[in-house]
Amino acid sequence: MAATPYQQLEQEFRRLHAFRGALSLLRWDAAVMMPRGSSDVRGEQLAALETEHHALLTTPKVARLLERAEAAAGQLEDWQLANLREMRRQRDHAIATPPSLIARLAKVTARAEVFWVEARKANDFKIFAPHLEEVVHLVRDKAALLGQARGLAPYDALIDGFTPGISTSDIDTIFKALSQKLPGLINEAIEVQAARPPLPLAGKFGVARQRQLAAEVLKALGFPFDRGRLDESEHPFTEGVPGDIRVTTRFDASDPFTGLLGAVHETGHAMYDLGLPQAWRDQPVGRDRGLALEESQSLLFEMNLCRSRAFVSYLKPLLEKFLQVSGPEWAEENLYRLLTRVKRSLIRMDADELTYPVHIMLRYELEKRILDGELPVAQLPEAWNENLEERLGVRPGNDVDGCLQDIHWAVGHFGYFPSYALGAVIAGQLHEALRSELPSLDEEIAAGRFGGVMEWLRDNVHGVGARLPVQDLMKQATGKPLTAAAYLRYLETKYLETS
Amino acid sequence: MAATPYQQLEQEFRRLHAFRGALSLLRWDAAVMMPRGSSDVRGEQLAALETEHHALLTTPKVARLLERAEAAAGQLEDWQLANLREMRRQRDHAIATPPSLIARLAKVTARAEVFWVEARKANDFKIFAPHLEEVVHLVRDKAALLGQARGLAPYDALIDGFTPGISTSDIDTIFKALSQKLPGLINEAIEVQAARPPLPLAGKFGVARQRQLAAEVLKALGFPFDRGRLDESEHPFTEGVPGDIRVTTRFDASDPFTGLLGAVHETGHAMYDLGLPQAWRDQPVGRDRGLALEESQSLLFEMNLCRSRAFVSYLKPLLEKFLQVSGPEWAEENLYRLLTRVKRSLIRMDADELTYPVHIMLRYELEKRILDGELPVAQLPEAWNENLEERLGVRPGNDVDGCLQDIHWAVGHFGYFPSYALGAVIAGQLHEALRSELPSLDEEIAAGRFGGVMEWLRDNVHGVGARLPVQDLMKQATGKPLTAAAYLRYLETKYLETS
Repeated sequence: MAATPYQQLEQEFRRLHAFRGALSLLRWDAAVMMPRGSSDVRGEQLAALETEHHALLTTPKVARLLERAEAAAGQLEDWQLANLREMRRQRDHAIATPPSLIARLAKVTARAEVFWVEARKANDFKIFAPHLEEVVHLVRDKAALLGQARGLAPYDALIDGFTPGISTSDIDTIFKALSQKLPGLINEAIEVQAARPPLPLAGKFGVARQRQLAAEVLKALGFPFDRGRLDESEHPFTEGVPGDIRVTTRFDASDPFTGLLGAVHETGHAMYDLGLPQAWRDQPVGRDRGLALEESQSLLFEMNLCRSRAFVSYLKPLLEKFLQVSGPEWAEENLYRLLTRVKRSLIRMDADELTYPVHIMLRYELEKRILDGELPVAQLPEAWNENLEERLGVRPGNDVDGCLQDIHWAVGHFGYFPSYALGAVIAGQLHEALRSELPSLDEEIAAGRFGGVMEWLRDNVHGVGARLPVQDLMKQATGKPLTAAAYLRYLETKYLETS
Repeated sequence: MAATPYQQLEQEFRRLHAFRGALSLLRWDAAVMMPRGSSDVRGEQLAALETEHHALLTTPKVARLLERAEAAAGQLEDWQLANLREMRRQRDHAIATPPSLIARLAKVTARAEVFWVEARKANDFKIFAPHLEEVVHLVRDKAALLGQARGLAPYDALIDGFTPGISTSDIDTIFKALSQKLPGLINEAIEVQAARPPLPLAGKFGVARQRQLAAEVLKALGFPFDRGRLDESEHPFTEGVPGDIRVTTRFDASDPFTGLLGAVHETGHAMYDLGLPQAWRDQPVGRDRGLALEESQSLLFEMNLCRSRAFVSYLKPLLEKFLQVSGPEWAEENLYRLLTRVKRSLIRMDADELTYPVHIMLRYELEKRILDGELPVAQLPEAWNENLEERLGVRPGNDVDGCLQDIHWAVGHFGYFPSYALGAVIAGQLHEALRSELPSLDEEIAAGRFGGVMEWLRDNVHGVGARLPVQDLMKQATGKPLTAAAYLRYLETKYLETS
């Protein structure tokens, strides 16, 4: 029997999946293994494979097959229909970003990145400004084209590329709730914590020992070392595909937690990817449901599950065993206080769980105003500093600590930042549902047993793949639409405890 | 100005080059880094990229461009003409092996490999025989198709795929000369060596120390660690592209030489790849001149240059420093005797420099007779054992030590074996020319200085790329056509010295 148009599409996308896996390995290798002098060669390989991936996705053949499969959609099952929708979404995005625009963006962002580095060295935004201006122009073009293709407002179309099914109005509602509650919560938490400051950890913690400790914890979380690797890189990340998943972290000899929690964070991503529906693993519907949901999984692990008293009680004997430490500063209560310390800081990457969303909301507001043309690029430093002072009560004294701190805009990532905070909000709501369905959660974590958590996540989140929009997935998993309520309850309980 | 057909071809092959680089990295990773459970996923990625590479090479567009460029060949420069010839050769090979045949070969060889492993476990060729039979059938089809496309006899067409420009009649002439001289030479060498047996090396040599020693030696050879890596794998190999070259070796704690010389052998390949003409690095003419020449470079390093008194004199202080060894067995003369020991053995992989070509000539003779249909697969074990006894005076007592020892035929590599011995012959002739043009060769090696060797190789071999057929390259580099004479002179001098 001849293959139906839909079946032929599955075949086409199977090939694209293999390409993406190869691209992912090339990126992993570039960050973890590649010799320094080889970046030009790698750049050519990545460009060639990306170009080919784009070409395969935008052939007239795929267009014809999509039309024919959509016309016969009545014969498809639920999963297949969802798969077809995702195929269409991928193709719409690819078609709306023609190779000429991609090439110009690649060129302009490569240059902007160089001048971003220069501007940071000189601590002078003006060096970066004209290049950011160029990036903004091209991102505007891209957003307009994507918006037309997807029937969305331009900025919504950018978001759709990172987290399908979330709109600016969803984000506005959630961020409004956070803006109302967080400032007060931050003030109170800092006050509560000031009354009982933790003892600092001193000394050096050998990286080899930290590596063993991290591997032990990852094993407990279920990380499959027979189909995955843990390595080290400048910044932690996750690459690979289900079946060969690779996480990295960076150990710091003067701090036993950054490396471990970096690895735990990435393992949240890895476990999501591993739990994706196996039967659909090489199809669009078998992929994760976008950046915000990915981030919810890493944050759920790093923040909700592991910066907890239960986890500290599991971790303490491991710290003693692997790092051979002891003393009052290693008492459970002290460790917990260290892991939940709140501080008003200038730098997003250094921010704690409670102040982090504030940094994101600032960026969300400013990037929308920049794209609208309402905020000229030249005025970004002043707008940034004012906005942070207003939101958090601290003001950067220079551009490096202000609007030059993140690489995202330089490389053209607009519409990306909100997913970090949305991830935290989603994690909060999932965590609440998980708690109510798994009343023994704390005891299990304290015993280093994560099987129950993983099972729940697999049933309710991971195994859904890209079958449902984020909003529907959340309703199905938690019984409620996505709001900030559960997340705020979680933060209040955690940071305002007076015991 | 519009691009000429030739210029458009350069663009097409630039893309193919990037694909090959990506494929090479996927293979390197599979052997060095990949978790055990991920081989299926990697297999899909390799298959997808190889299929796409094949498809890009066989488009009607490339065919049309080739015809038009060949019609206007008068306007091309020497290098461009050679490039066009290589493009044509690559395409002829690709067209002659249609995807259906490649797919059948992949399937049949994958199964044959499984049963080759089984047959080795059971020490019973009969388990493997029917699968080898299937492989032979398909290889015959492939050879016939390739022969038609390239205007060559079938077996010559297979050789053309590995070492372009070498014919069966070239090989016959060279192997005849070897067959006449080697048996007597082997007898005499064994007799000479029996009179002065070396002291054995005892003890354990830490792998970490061996790794440092190997890195030190590779640095002296000129291996560029800023654009390359040394790692460990089951069998030593070289992957990558110029600009990101990756060699591996395997260290043995009870033997300080296998790991080091494995790394040196692979560095011979790496230096060849690095010395290829930079201006043509992403074009067919910028590639190496096939397997025999590749092997000549690795053997030149491992055998001619490094199993020498001069190298031992450079190596000895390094062994003392890195492995912290001393005693009479570490005297230069003793080390040299250990490195040049001749022994009649059953296994090709364990064979020394002098007996190695004998193992190759056996395989060359038998694989031609199998493909001709003259030797039925079922009679292979008996033919093998007789042939080895006749050539070397030893007879395998079982199939594992006989015709089951190599994986090559199981995976469909017919026409591959001769290049190992041709490589040694080429290395011998290059070595003689190098010696006469660089009279201080021994002193330089003894001082760990390889700059002069590299310069000569770059000028005469590496930098030629694929511009000339092997025969012309040899005439240009050594002033003589390729024969076995210099190689045999080298072996006689080295193994019959009576000092």
